[in-house]
Amino acid sequence: MARVVVDVMLKPEILDPQGRAVAGSLRRLGLTGVTDVRQGKQFIIDLDGVVEGARLELIETLAAELLSNPVIEDYKLQVIEDPA
Amino acid sequence: MARVVVDVMLKPEILDPQGRAVAGSLRRLGLTGVTDVRQGKQFIIDLDGVVEGARLELIETLAAELLSNPVIEDYKLQVIEDPA
Repeated sequence: MARVVVDVMLKPEILDPQGRAVAGSLRRLGLTGVTDVRQGKQFIIDLDGVVEGARLELIETLAAELLSNPVIEDYKLQVIEDPA
Repeated sequence: MARVVVDVMLKPEILDPQGRAVAGSLRRLGLTGVTDVRQGKQFIIDLDGVVEGARLELIETLAAELLSNPVIEDYKLQVIEDPA
């Protein structure tokens, strides 16, 4: 069994109004020194078997084209074999 | 400078229709062995100074009550001092 965690985040040059709203709320609720907040998505995918070779390549492609929008988002993929 | 990463995920006992839809798409696009997909949110908060003591406690409270909905969501908080 394996777990793949895909974090999807707006590219740094793309404005993030949700993140900006969260930053404003954090400041209003007393948190000082907030310089930036970005809000993204996280997908946790549980799979049978091992993730390597062609299967890992397919997951990379799906993360880049299905789970994220390559025009405005970056993704980060992490494979955890045998998650607790 | 410090970075706080807050991952917010639906509690395991709460149905996740978005995750289920993603699981269906992954399977249709040829990924075998998918047993479960959960979709959550990720907040990346950049802050001046260090995160410890009362400030860390405030961030924990805000993560539990502003960034997540404690009725249906769990959160995971990670502090990264001096992110690259």
